[in-house]
Amino acid sequence: MPLVRISHPAGMTEAHRQALSDGVQEAMESTIQVPPNDRFHILTEHASGLIFDAHYLGIERSLAWVAVQITLRKGRTVEMKQALYRRIVENLATDPGLRPEDVMICLVENDLADWSFGKGEAPYVR
Amino acid sequence: MPLVRISHPAGMTEAHRQALSDGVQEAMESTIQVPPNDRFHILTEHASGLIFDAHYLGIERSLAWVAVQITLRKGRTVEMKQALYRRIVENLATDPGLRPEDVMICLVENDLADWSFGKGEAPYVR
Amino acid sequence: MPLVRISHPAGMTEAHRQALSDGVQEAMESTIQVPPNDRFHILTEHASGLIFDAHYLGIERSLAWVAVQITLRKGRTVEMKQALYRRIVENLATDPGLRPEDVMICLVENDLADWSFGKGEAPYVR
Repeated sequence: MPLVRISHPAGMTEAHRQALSDGVQEAMESTIQVPPNDRFHILTEHASGLIFDAHYLGIERSLAWVAVQITLRKGRTVEMKQALYRRIVENLATDPGLRPEDVMICLVENDLADWSFGKGEAPYVR
Repeated sequence: MPLVRISHPAGMTEAHRQALSDGVQEAMESTIQVPPNDRFHILTEHASGLIFDAHYLGIERSLAWVAVQITLRKGRTVEMKQALYRRIVENLATDPGLRPEDVMICLVENDLADWSFGKGEAPYVR
Repeated sequence: MPLVRISHPAGMTEAHRQALSDGVQEAMESTIQVPPNDRFHILTEHASGLIFDAHYLGIERSLAWVAVQITLRKGRTVEMKQALYRRIVENLATDPGLRPEDVMICLVENDLADWSFGKGEAPYVR
């Protein structure tokens, strides 16, 4: 059910982009109970337009900086969210090799009635 | 007031994109009381980067898959949201001819104070 | 902490885009207490795909129309949001010279636990 938006610099290979998607997906599966086949990701490359502070909170960011915004139903605990963040940066450090400093994550929560996955159905509120 | 983001595959004609926008707009007007001239849509095409499961919940998706994310003020009932989903896929099946299986919809709710439509005004909280 | 998405027409110089980002950032700093180095903006240009009503609420919009969507933690008052909207359009009128009618703003609120700025940390819920 999460809808994931990944905004990344231009010039990446498709394998690199797939690794970004895979790493976020595995992290959601292993920490916040997202089913393996519940994957809906939108990746957008930016030749320019990613404008960010390179030092905020003492974290040193590089031009490889990526923003991950995840819309998901409400209900995850703070501990689950913390585990999610840790797992995403671990996964992306392994593949495609992103520095943990270069991964921003932002969650937006909504309700069970706010989702349709096709056919005009609202499967979570039957 | 809704802000609509439509993410779709590349290679569509402008008429096709306009039909996507028209179909979503008419559905919002006819099911959740959005005024006809309250239209603010952002369409983004993706030559790649739409990464989704082709079978989640038993719905068979194709490469024509489109994601519609709508930010709107809170207050619509579950029944209104269900009607909205049904109407969007009906409209998009008619024009531009999308399969109902290929339309994902995700809502995000906010408050009346969260909107400005120009001139720096917040018209819903006067 | 805000994550800012600015959707604008294609054909702008980088200086013009930077001015969009700068104007929104300064407004957040001066009206809703965002720290100066807390800047995370994603700008997207649209050769087509910005589909909006040119007259809604009696505001006359032009093809220069820009949409600004800001995700931020909950807690700002209505008065702070109104000040934010006014300041954004003032700043963008000065540079890059946008008409106040051409600036739409939409806020989405989340929680302190919904943010990670790097290293997999959730700094607002330590």
